This record gives sequence, C-alpha cells and structure tokens, in this order.
Amino acid sequence: MLVYGFAQGNKDMRDLLGGKGANLAEMTNLGLPVPPGFTITTEACRTYLDTGQVPAELHDEVTKHLALVETARGKRLGDPGDPLLVSVRSGAKFSMPGMMDTVLNIGLTDRSVRGLAEQAGDERFAWDSYRRLLQMFGKTVQGIDGAHFDDALDALKRDRGAPHDVDLDAGALRELVTTYKQIVRAESGRDFPQDPREQLDAAIRAVFDSWNAPRAITYRRQERISADLGTAVNVVAMVFGNAGPDSGTGVAFTRDPASGARGVYGDYLANAQGEDVVAGIRNTVPLTELAHLDKKSYDELLDIMATLEGHYRDLCDIEFTIERGRLWMLQTRVGKRTAAAAFRIATQLVDEGLITEDEALSRVDGHQLAQLMFPRFDERAARQAIAHGMNASPGAAVGRAVFDTATAVEWNSTGEDVILVRRETTPDDLDGMIAARGILTSRGGRTSHAAVVARGMGKTCVCGVETLDIDVARGRFTAPGGVEVSEGDVISIDGTTGDVFLGEVPVVDSPVVRYFEGELDPGAAQAEELVRSVHRLMKVADGRRRLGVRANADLPDDAARARAMGAAGIGLCRTEHMFLGERRRYVEALVLAEDDAERTAALEALLPLQRADFEGLLAAMDGLPVTVRLLDPPLHEFLPDLTDLSVRVALAGERGVRDPQDERLLRAVRRLHEQNPMMGLRGVRLGLVVPGLYALQVRAVAEAAAARERAGGHPRVEVMIPLVGTVQELELSREEAERTIADVRERTGFTGPIPVGTMVELPRAALTAGAIARAADFFSFGTNDLTQTTWGFSRDDVEAAFFAAYLERGVFGVSPFESLDVAGVGRLVDLAVREGRAARPDLKLGVCGEHGGDPDSVHFFHEAGLDYVSCSAFRVPVARLEAGRAAVLADADAGSASR
Amino acid sequence: MLVYGFAQGNKDMRDLLGGKGANLAEMTNLGLPVPPGFTITTEACRTYLDTGQVPAELHDEVTKHLALVETARGKRLGDPGDPLLVSVRSGAKFSMPGMMDTVLNIGLTDRSVRGLAEQAGDERFAWDSYRRLLQMFGKTVQGIDGAHFDDALDALKRDRGAPHDVDLDAGALRELVTTYKQIVRAESGRDFPQDPREQLDAAIRAVFDSWNAPRAITYRRQERISADLGTAVNVVAMVFGNAGPDSGTGVAFTRDPASGARGVYGDYLANAQGEDVVAGIRNTVPLTELAHLDKKSYDELLDIMATLEGHYRDLCDIEFTIERGRLWMLQTRVGKRTAAAAFRIATQLVDEGLITEDEALSRVDGHQLAQLMFPRFDERAARQAIAHGMNASPGAAVGRAVFDTATAVEWNSTGEDVILVRRETTPDDLDGMIAARGILTSRGGRTSHAAVVARGMGKTCVCGVETLDIDVARGRFTAPGGVEVSEGDVISIDGTTGDVFLGEVPVVDSPVVRYFEGELDPGAAQAEELVRSVHRLMKVADGRRRLGVRANADLPDDAARARAMGAAGIGLCRTEHMFLGERRRYVEALVLAEDDAERTAALEALLPLQRADFEGLLAAMDGLPVTVRLLDPPLHEFLPDLTDLSVRVALAGERGVRDPQDERLLRAVRRLHEQNPMMGLRGVRLGLVVPGLYALQVRAVAEAAAARERAGGHPRVEVMIPLVGTVQELELSREEAERTIADVRERTGFTGPIPVGTMVELPRAALTAGAIARAADFFSFGTNDLTQTTWGFSRDDVEAAFFAAYLERGVFGVSPFESLDVAGVGRLVDLAVREGRAARPDLKLGVCGEHGGDPDSVHFFHEAGLDYVSCSAFRVPVARLEAGRAAVLADADAGSASR
Repeated sequence: MLVYGFAQGNKDMRDLLGGKGANLAEMTNLGLPVPPGFTITTEACRTYLDTGQVPAELHDEVTKHLALVETARGKRLGDPGDPLLVSVRSGAKFSMPGMMDTVLNIGLTDRSVRGLAEQAGDERFAWDSYRRLLQMFGKTVQGIDGAHFDDALDALKRDRGAPHDVDLDAGALRELVTTYKQIVRAESGRDFPQDPREQLDAAIRAVFDSWNAPRAITYRRQERISADLGTAVNVVAMVFGNAGPDSGTGVAFTRDPASGARGVYGDYLANAQGEDVVAGIRNTVPLTELAHLDKKSYDELLDIMATLEGHYRDLCDIEFTIERGRLWMLQTRVGKRTAAAAFRIATQLVDEGLITEDEALSRVDGHQLAQLMFPRFDERAARQAIAHGMNASPGAAVGRAVFDTATAVEWNSTGEDVILVRRETTPDDLDGMIAARGILTSRGGRTSHAAVVARGMGKTCVCGVETLDIDVARGRFTAPGGVEVSEGDVISIDGTTGDVFLGEVPVVDSPVVRYFEGELDPGAAQAEELVRSVHRLMKVADGRRRLGVRANADLPDDAARARAMGAAGIGLCRTEHMFLGERRRYVEALVLAEDDAERTAALEALLPLQRADFEGLLAAMDGLPVTVRLLDPPLHEFLPDLTDLSVRVALAGERGVRDPQDERLLRAVRRLHEQNPMMGLRGVRLGLVVPGLYALQVRAVAEAAAARERAGGHPRVEVMIPLVGTVQELELSREEAERTIADVRERTGFTGPIPVGTMVELPRAALTAGAIARAADFFSFGTNDLTQTTWGFSRDDVEAAFFAAYLERGVFGVSPFESLDVAGVGRLVDLAVREGRAARPDLKLGVCGEHGGDPDSVHFFHEAGLDYVSCSAFRVPVARLEAGRAAVLADADAGSASR
Repeated sequence: MLVYGFAQGNKDMRDLLGGKGANLAEMTNLGLPVPPGFTITTEACRTYLDTGQVPAELHDEVTKHLALVETARGKRLGDPGDPLLVSVRSGAKFSMPGMMDTVLNIGLTDRSVRGLAEQAGDERFAWDSYRRLLQMFGKTVQGIDGAHFDDALDALKRDRGAPHDVDLDAGALRELVTTYKQIVRAESGRDFPQDPREQLDAAIRAVFDSWNAPRAITYRRQERISADLGTAVNVVAMVFGNAGPDSGTGVAFTRDPASGARGVYGDYLANAQGEDVVAGIRNTVPLTELAHLDKKSYDELLDIMATLEGHYRDLCDIEFTIERGRLWMLQTRVGKRTAAAAFRIATQLVDEGLITEDEALSRVDGHQLAQLMFPRFDERAARQAIAHGMNASPGAAVGRAVFDTATAVEWNSTGEDVILVRRETTPDDLDGMIAARGILTSRGGRTSHAAVVARGMGKTCVCGVETLDIDVARGRFTAPGGVEVSEGDVISIDGTTGDVFLGEVPVVDSPVVRYFEGELDPGAAQAEELVRSVHRLMKVADGRRRLGVRANADLPDDAARARAMGAAGIGLCRTEHMFLGERRRYVEALVLAEDDAERTAALEALLPLQRADFEGLLAAMDGLPVTVRLLDPPLHEFLPDLTDLSVRVALAGERGVRDPQDERLLRAVRRLHEQNPMMGLRGVRLGLVVPGLYALQVRAVAEAAAARERAGGHPRVEVMIPLVGTVQELELSREEAERTIADVRERTGFTGPIPVGTMVELPRAALTAGAIARAADFFSFGTNDLTQTTWGFSRDDVEAAFFAAYLERGVFGVSPFESLDVAGVGRLVDLAVREGRAARPDLKLGVCGEHGGDPDSVHFFHEAGLDYVSCSAFRVPVARLEAGRAAVLADADAGSASR
C-alpha cells in the first residue's frame, strides 16, 4: 500500500507518512475539518529514488484516492466547469523547513481556469492562481530558472505602473499567463501540460526528486538525517483563504509559546493565502480579532484548539484557512517554545492533569536549562536595542566595541572589557576572540567561524546581524535608524536572544542559578513560577535518574560550589594547577636537576603544598568521593615557551648581556620540546619515566586523607592514572602507588580504602579494556582526549582552522567536542564498558570529559551503563536533569517495546 | 594426572610438560639413553600458584614415579649406602634461559654423602657434590643470600692457598660443608633437612615459586609470555660426567649451525659436569676428539644424532654426559643457527628428502632474510677486530669516531661520516645520532636508548661493548689489548654481528640484494649456495602466497628498483616531495596569496611539474597499479621553522635591517603554527579547506594517465585520500575528484578506470569503516599513523623519550612501530576489514604503513584477509617471503585443526 487516505493514518505513522501527513491523518480521525486528501508514502519515494521508476502500483492507487477526494469535494480534478484543485507538498519524517518542493493549484488549465473564475465569481483570483501554478510548476517540475518568471512579472508591473502584485488586474494577469506559457515552451522545449493528471504525476515525481536537491543533501548532512528515509507526498484539495472578505488564513497556538499561559495566541489575515503572510505584504491582526470578523469560525477554532491540546497533551501550533466562512485545518504540530516556557508549560500541564511528572520531565531538556542558567541582562533596566542577529553562543556581554584583534588584545591587557566587532572572523582573529568578552559579526550563521569558535570557548556571540554596516578601517558601525557606534563606545550583546544594545545594560545572575546556589527558596510565595517549575522537575529527575553526577573541580571553592549544585563528589581533580604560579620554580628545579639529590629536594618542597591542597579539597567534599588525577601535561608546559625564550636569549646575546640561567633553561626547554606535545611525554609516561613524581603525588594524597581522618573527617579519595594505553603501564604505576600508600598507612595508621583506577582516554585503552580492568578499580572516560585521538585532531589546532567549514558543509552535524560522537568515540566507550565489566564485574565506571555535562551525551552515557558522569559545577544541574530524562525516556522506550 | 614418567609424554606436549620435559619424553620413547625421571606438569604449578598449596594428589604421584626411577637405577633416594641423587629443574613451555631455578644432587645427606663416596670410590667428588647441594638449596629453596656461601668458599681458598675450587681436597671440602651447614642454620633458623624426600618436595616448591621471581616476571613482560602458563618441573636421576677419566660432558649439533653442512660439530670436556663447561675453567676439545677418548660412546652418539635429526627433521642441538663409559642424553631441542645457515639447511633438508618445500619455507623467516640483505663488510678484506658487543641494529657503518653530539653534527655538516661513541645515549644525543652513520656504546642491551632509537631510525648500532673504556671528556676510548682510539680515528662497526673494527673495512652489497636486483644469476654454476637457497625459497613463497606485495615509492627510480625487487605496483606514492626544494616557493605563494588569482597562479604553476612526476612514475610501473596519496602534511611543513624565523626577525629588528618579506612570512607561519601539527590541518582537512589544492593534484594524476595512454602505455592509477575520519569527508573530496576526472576525460578522451579510495589511519575511520566503505573503492591501512593515534603518541616525540624505559620494564614487548600491535591497532584493522567488506564485498584492502614489511605483521595481515601489503623497496622480498610463509603456516594450522 503506497497511498493512505487521511482517514487511514495516524500521528504515530511518521516513518511512513512523514510528520505533516501523520498529523493531517490524526486531525481527520479526530473529526476536525481537514480538506480531503491523501499521502503517498516514503516507501514509494524510496523505491522511486532507488530504481528511478515510480512504482507500478502507484498510478492506480493515486487514481483511487483521487476519486475519493473528488467525491468528497463534489468536483473533478481540472474539470473545465468547476475544477478540483490540489496542492502537492513534501513532508518528511523530520522537518526540513524550506528544503523541498511544493506545487499548488494543480488542476488548472487553459480551460479550467475559466471554470474556476466562474465558480468563484472572481476573474482575477482565477488568473492569479493559474499564473502561480505556471510559475511553481515551471521552476519545480520543469527545472526552469525562476528569474525568467520574476523578470516577466517585473516587466509587466513596470509596464502597467503597478507597484505591487496585487495592483495587477485580471487582464494583466491573463497576459502574464500567456507570457509564462511562452517562457515554459522556450525554456523546456514543450508546452505546459494541459492534462491535469499529467500535472499531478509530474509534481509528485518532482517532490520525490527534491529529496536529493543539493540544499536538502547539505541540510541532512548537517542535521544528521539519514539520506535513505525519503519524503512522503501530501496531495490535498485546495481551499482558498483569498476567496473574498469572508475568507482568510492564520496561525494559532494553544497557549502562549513565550510564557505558557493559556489563552488565544496567533495571527490572522483576512482574504489572503499562506504565502501572502510569509511575504509580509499586509499586516496580520491578533487572532482574537477573528471573534469580531467571523464569530462562528472563531468559536469553532477555539473548540478545535482545546481538542488538539487535550489530544496531543501539549502546546500545539496550527495553520488554518477560512474559505467563504468555512474553517479548514491545514496543519498542526507540537509547537516550539522558549526555554522558560518549556519549564512552565510542563508543570502547568501536570497541574491541569494532562500529563504525568515523568512526561513533564521529558518535555524539557538540559539545553533549555543551561540557557536559563546564563547571566542575563536585567529585565527591569532601560535598554536601547539597535539590532538583532543570530543567537550563536549564549550569555550576556558588555564591553567597548573594538574592530581588530590587536586593539582587542591591547585594551584587554589594561583590564578593559571589549566586544570584538567584525564582518566575519577568521583564524587570524583568534587572539582577539580570546581577549574579548563577546563577539559580534554581521555575516555568517550558527556554523560560521565566529559562532563555532565562540561556542568552543564558551564565549558570548551574536552573529549574522545583517543590518549592521561595519567599517573596520574606520573603526565604526552603523545600525538601522542611523545609530553609529565607534571604537570605544560601549555596547551589550545577548547571545541567548541575539539582541544588540547600545550602551551598558546591567547584567544579573540567573534566578535559576541563584536557586541552585541556595539563594532563592522555591517554596517562598514570591518565588518566580520559573524557579518553582525548575525545582519541581529537578526533584522528579533526581528521583528517577540512575546516573550519579559528580563535578570536575580542582580547588576547595570550586568543590563547595559544585556540592551546592548537587554534585555527589569530584570525578576529576586536575593536579596541574598545583605546579603553576609560584610553584613553577620547583618544576624548573626538577627539570634542571643534575642529580638525584636536587630532584628529590624539588619534589620534597612540593609535598607539603600538595598535601594542603588535597586536605582542602577533601574537607569541601567530606564524605563524598574525590578522584585525583596524577599529573598529566608534559613538563615543558610549566616552562617558558621555546620561541619566546629563544628570541630572548638571541637578543641578550646580540646586546652582550647574556643570562646564564636563561641559557641553561633554554637548553632544558629545547631538550623537552616536542613536535606534538599532546602525543608526547605526558600522563603515565611521565609517571614511569620521571623518578619520584607520581610517588610524591600519591604520598600527598594519602597523607591528606590520613590528616583529614585524624581531624574527624570522612575522606574518600581515589587515585587516577592518566593516559594509560596498555595494562602494563597501569600495573607498574599501580605497584608504585600501592607501595607508597602502604608506607603512609604504616606511618599514620590510616586504614580507609584508596581505590586506584585509570582514565580511558586513548583508543588503545578502550580496545584493551578487558586486560586493563584487571588492574583497575575504576575507569573514568576522558572523552576530550578520547575524541582527539579517535579523530586524530587536537582541539586547539582544528577548531579555529576548519570546524566552521566542516559544519557548513555538513561533515559534522555538531562539533564532536560539544556532543559525544556516538558512532566513533561512543563505540569505543561501549566496547570498554562491556569488556571492562566482563573482566571485572565490580568495576566502577564514570566519565570526566566535558561531554559529562552535555545533554545529548548524558543519554548516551546512561544507555552505555556508566555509574556516573562528572562535569563542571555549572553543568551539574544540567547533567542531573538529563540523567533523569534519560531514565524516563529509556523506561518509556522499554514500555513501548514490550507493548 | 599431575606427573608424567618420561615414557608417558611426547614432544607435542609442551603446554603440559614444558619444552625440556616434552623432548626428554620424546627421546625416551625413541629408545635413547635418557636417565630415568619424570615431569611434574605445568597444571600442578598453576594450581600451586593459584592456591598457595601443592595439589593434594601430587605427593602420592611423586612417590609412585620416584619409586619407578629408584627401580630403574637400582638405588633409593638418599640411601645411606648407595644413594640415588636427582636433579630438579624448571622447564616452561617457552624457553626462559636463566630465569628460573635448578637444584642438583638432591638426596645427599650427612649419611648418604659417605655412601656416595664409597660407591664412587671418590671422597672428594662426594663432598664437593654435597657442598654444591647445600649452596644451591640454601640460595634457591631457603632464600639465603648467596654471598654468604661465596665468602666462605673464598676464605677457605685463601686459608688453604688454593687458587681454584679444584685445588681444594676432600678434607677441605668436608670442612666447607660444615661451614655451609652453619650458614644455613644461622640464616634460615633451622638445619639443612636430612630427609631426602623433604629436600625433594621443598625443591619442587622452590621451582614453582621461581616462576614469579622478579626477573622472570620482567622477562615475561618483555617477551610477552603469559604470566598464567606456569612451569613444569623435571626430576631426573643424576648422572655424573665428573666421575673419573672415563666420564665427561658435551654439547653436539647434528650439522654445522653456521653453514648447515653435515658432520660432527660440538665440544667435549672430559671428567667434568655441565656447570664446569659454563664456568670455562678448563678448555673443551672438539667433539671429534671423543672418537679417540671413547670410541664406543662416540659411535653411539653419532647414531643418536642421526636418529634425532631424522626424527625432528631439523638441526638438533644436544647435551650429553658420559658416566664411566656410559652415554646419557640430558637434553635436545631444535638448534639455533645463523640467518645464512637457516636458508642453506632448509634447502639441504629438502634435497635430502627429509622435508617438503613448504616445510623448508616455514624454517626460514623474513628477519633472517632482512639480515642477509644489509650491506656487509667485505669478507675478503683484512680487518682488525678490537671488540665485540650486542648486535643492536643491523648494518655496516664506517666513520670517524666522535664522542659528543655537537661534534657529530658539526663534522657531519661538512660531509664527514662519523660514528658516535658514547657510554650510553640519552635524549640529548638525538641530533648526534641523526648525524652519525652508526652508534657505538659500552653500556646497555638491546632495549637501551641507543639500541631502540637506532632501530627506529634504521641506523647501524653496536651497544653494550663492555670491554671498551670510553673517556668522553678526553675524546678517546681504549679497547682490550691496549688499542686506543681517539676522536677522528676511523672505526668500522657491524650491527649485524656486534663486531667493532679498527680502521676502515670496505663495505660490499649483500649478494642476496644483488640477486634480487638481477645482478646475480642463481642458476649460474659459481653462484653461492646461499643465493641458490634464497632463490629457491622465494619461488616457493611466491607460489604459495595469497597477499600481493607492492612498494611505497615516490620517484621513478625508486619505483624501478621496487619492481626489480618483485613489487606488483605502488601501494603508496607520497606527493610531499613534489612540494619541496625549489617548489617550496609555490607553497609560500599559496600561503601568502591574498586573493583567488594569486592562489590559482601558485597552483597552476605546480600542475605541469606534478603531471611530469606522475608520468615518470606511471612509466616505471607501467601495467601495474600506482596509488597516489594526495597531500598529507600541514602546509607549514613547507615553510621556515617558527622559532628560527622569529629569532631571525628579532635580530634583524635589533640590527635595524628589517626584511618585510621575512616579516610577512613570519605572520603566515604564526598563523599556520600548530600546537600539535600531527593532529592539525592536514590530510583531507587541507583538501577540503584549501580551495583548489586537491583538484590540482587529481588533475595532474588524471592528465598524466591520459598522456601515458596516448604514448601507448598502460597506466593504472588510483587516487587515495588521506586522514579520513568520517564518510562525509570522503564523499565531499571524492565528489570533487570525480568532477575533475570527468573534466580531464572530456578534454583528453581518457577512459581507463581511476579508483578513488582512502587511507584508514585514524581509529574513527576503522570504527566507522562500514559507512566509509560505501564511498571508497579501496582502503589502505596507514598503520604508522594508526599506531600513533591508537596509542596517542607521536613517534618523533616518544621513541627517544621513553621507549627504551618501556622496553626495559616490559611495558612493550617490541616497539609498536616495529611490529604491529595486534591487541590494539590490529583489532581496529580486523574490525575495519570485516565491516568494510560487509558493506562493500569488492572493497580492495591493503596496508601501506611500515608494518607492511615487518615479518610478524605480514602474518597478521594475511590472517586479517588483506589483498596486499606495501612497503619500502628493500622490504619487498621480506614481505614476499613472509606472505608465502603465512599461507603455508595457515594451511598447516588448518590441517592440524581438521585432523
């Protein structure tokens, strides 16, 4: 069966009927007034695309369903006296807005156009409909360059002195039809088909073909929609909102998509078709006006909205048309909403008894929660919006406008906040982007260089503000209305909304963050509805989730904040900072040591400092696990840069003021210099090659635990070995760690457990996880490094260099550093989980890469069966929410699978 | 069954009985005179190691078998009047020479020592045997520091004025026994056990325990021998070669292990035990002397040697003892031999009808063939050997001795060949090692820094020449005999044999290479036997192998050489060199281009040059496939070094002679500079981001093919896209390549196929091979990069920094760059082969990493089911030989599995 009448489908048949077709069928079966029509399945499309042939049965099935439509409407397709007209629209499983083709008014011919004019009593309407068919059919089905039609229309308007299309009368449009038919003949080599069924069949094929239009292919590549799905085709009897003053067209929402409040929201345009609304030729009126224009239709629409919301149990958006006082539903779907509205609506629907709390949880997501947590411009403050662009990277940034990287870096170095303003950014602007509080561009979308790099940096960015005229050379830009902003003027940009403001707008903390930090009581009477909604859904999530959530934190303050945010421990304490600042001199001493005594002295100087660091951390996380990763980066990261030092030494030599210490250091830096430090002497390799380094750290950890225990605390520390590629590395470093711990136990009497585990951050660790698990108490997936090695690119180098181009061309759907690459990196994680647990059933499994706080990735980690995720403190609530959602959605899937 | 009498086992039971036990059983069943004894299985050992308890049944089984030995020898263990003595020796499945323990003379007590003296009629012999038991038992079983025994022996010798052990008479030895017993009591807190069975049981446990001695653990880690195997224990009735002038001990080979010639080879030492031979106290005589000393035993031995060789169908080595005119066989195994002898013996055995040609092929290997292919010192030239060390990295190198890196670099820069001489090398010596022709050290073995790095570089190295006294400060070394070599003196080192010569020894090409290059006719009467053997076995290998062998070659000359060596095409043509030298200026122009016109001009200037390169290559490989890899390295590799250029620009500024071109270049170099270039903008990423670059290369390839076809040739070119991580990259670059090829076809009329495929050199490519295969005509595994990314280390950085330490500590068994890491990288290869072929059954699969020429790796690639390997020209014969062996051995395995 390749064709389904609307009464034969339902909303769950999106695979076969596409989203639009499935919802049209659902509305039909609800008894709502949907124009008669049918849907040609995606399967028919797939067969056509595979074989190049329309399936043999399709013709007869279309004939049969077309006859039913004709019967329902009491007209025949293209009947010269009173023609049935149909639209042919694409409708894939996943929305691909504007990517594929539509042909309206199929059924008009030289003869039936007159019948339509007569029946409608409107000559102009009929000829306008016909010229629209010729234009759409010519472009879409016959592949004629649309400029030919546009040029002819423009010429006619000039000729007639008509400023707008609507100023052309019936005679002019009839003339245009003649011109269009000539264009069709000249460009396609044949006449426009006068057989209505031939029109219909050709339009269906054209919609099939449009699945493989270049823009559709790129869009699918970007959105990771499978190229194999194909599109359904909806053939629907045309109804006309432009059939006179008692006709019209509109959109409606079953509740306010911004606040979630119930009510009547939407717009209406009398005597118009959908495309007129899009073209913005006339202004729409609020939907409530319809009550005065056509009370009967308005009441019917309100009834239908109530029905749909009750049925879909969610906010729906609706497209409708009134043809001569009769209401027709053309489309519905679950409506988009703002992040705040999503939380409010979800809890409202629970209060209204429409959905369960689990369902409410599934209606919001971590991306929305994260958006709500960014600082925002104070809503009560005065502000002057001067432009609006793409909300490329969320946040609220205020600073002086600068127009080049050098100025950005220079001003920032004096403590000035700056916003970097560029037409578009390139890799050359990287330092300027780092120096700026925010980035503003006039070109490029969410996949532009500016957007991609800013998101990678977590920096506020508004891009593609096309109304700005930026003059970099003169250091100024002009906004609509003649507003001029020069270098040094303060501007404010909202990366969450895309707004650009003149002057400083005060920034306030998000109330959601203040709630998480315990500053707002969600139970208080004056608490915002949003905070109450978030609080309620967080409780649901915490009750449902199976994944633990820890934080990545290196310092006691970070740990305390993470704990407030709900972290159940530290999944990653990086010990790098313990070698920075003042302590660099010990690393220099370690590197320059010429004998064991010097080396030992350098290490011993570090011991009390490190022990104090760990004591603070264990105090802040008392009673909760704290995973300490031993030193990971190469030692030269703690030394001066090779190029800088080389220049310094060369210049000193030139000036005759040589510095022996600098020269000695330069030799060491040269010796330790690596071509590819990320793939060099770091992690466990350092631990095995630099005598005493890891032992020092393990001693500091164990002694800190002992000290905390003596002080009455409950330290739960874990030692984590980074960058292990083979079990032998782990065995050797573990042996050394166990010896050190045993020694500390003996001297302090400390008896608590100190598990020793490893990062899994190299493909080889994942591939040999079964062997490695035998020497590990836990695995923590370092998905940042695992992404870098699995793909063979270093984030520092490639994000700026080519990620924008890759996203633009659809090589990536999303940066693999933002959201875990399930097919590649995820496969390694899955394999390591399975084989690690098989070798050691009590193996504890977590993730401590940034993906631990990414909503989509959290679902993957839930499904992979990890015990916990660990992420930055700020992301802890997001992870908690998504972990709850993952559990709920997995249960729902299991439920539907078992039904 | 935990104990096997020798008559119950056979040579195929190595898993259970160990190598020594299995061969003793085999000889026993052949009716050869093996002293009676039995083998305790590895299973008993494993149980003991797992549980800490000797398995319950073992005691009774030992009792039973011991009784059989007693019956056979007509003596009882430790019988005071005429004691049976036994040895207790370890014997694992894989030889672990010197790693585990042995106890001889079990059964001697204060009473039975007198019985032994009486029976042997030799007081001194009995007391010497007893003191040896006390010493071995004390050290091995009771864990007493051996220095105690050595000190006591030395004191006694001083006391008696006896220069050697043998100068001590029976009385002195009896006194020594008393001293030793005191040491045992003092150190172990108990008396030496006077119950012979207690001695036996304790010795068995001690041998079990020695499986887990630290040195054994490290050895197994290095050799990748599983820690789970355990050792067997052989209990054998003692026979004494030191029982008088009609006794003795010796070793024998069934043919000459150096040449393979049949005859009597070996050494004999009268009135001595095995350990005396090892101690080198007296000189052995050639085995043929035995004919004069003991004709009967000699004839019997020759008979046995013939029996063994016929039975094992290979060269055997033998240990034997004659006790009072009676010959006993103590051990046999298939004997070691030189590389040249391996080839000669294998073909001789075929000629003698002992083995088939397939078996002969399995008796040689690619490591041996590679050894035979290195240039060698002319055998006919005079030479003065001054020392001998470890043959760490093969080859023959001649040069002036230098003692530090700075001098090595300086002299080399003036065209001088140098040999770097160091006590040992460190990462600081890297530049010197690069500059030297060869490396000579006095410390460290095959896993020392010098050895590992030299092998990685393919550079000749002799290390651990402990007889050299190297004085780096004075720039000279002294060899035995007072030979002194100072900086600048010429020396010659042979990395294949470990020899060090004074002065220049002429180097000649290997006759095997001259044969491969067609300069020697193996059929000629005067051809060396070695060349004839190699030729014959290569024919067998070529007839049997399923893997094709191609070469990695970039230039026409290389291609021609590879073809002579038997390459069936080029598996990897790197196009990097086409951007080097003079052509760098085009790359600079490309990088500095400020508009499309400048970029296009730079690319177009390269087109005719590249086309000519490819034409030459296709001509050299006419009729055979040539796989061209599009540009892989990052563009900044073709530009000056950042640090050098920064210093130059800074100094020019300081001197007031600024160079605008240098400054412009510096900005470009800074912009393109990458933290980790290996993981940066390279490979297909360059192709997708630098407009026109890959199109230029594809055009050059296609036009070259067209030109060759016009000239009457048969070009078979393939285009390979490097560094693909996701199918989208391949699709996009393939689309562009196909467009370019179509354009060339249209303009030239060329119609031959040009397959487009990809490297698989990133873990993600392997993990998503099923998807990638749908866009690829072939895969070529780039196992160098795949090793780097799977392990997360860059060869440049880590080989010098920590590979030596890793090999030493057994983290690696062998460098994963030398031999493919089957557990990690190999798993990815296997997965990609399986899923790539499943998605596309006609997918062509090859490997073009250096592993393609590594003998062990070739077997893996055969088993993985690849179509071909590609390696350097020099390695092509090695790969051919091993591909044949892989096929033969796989068939043999399949045969034995089906039996």
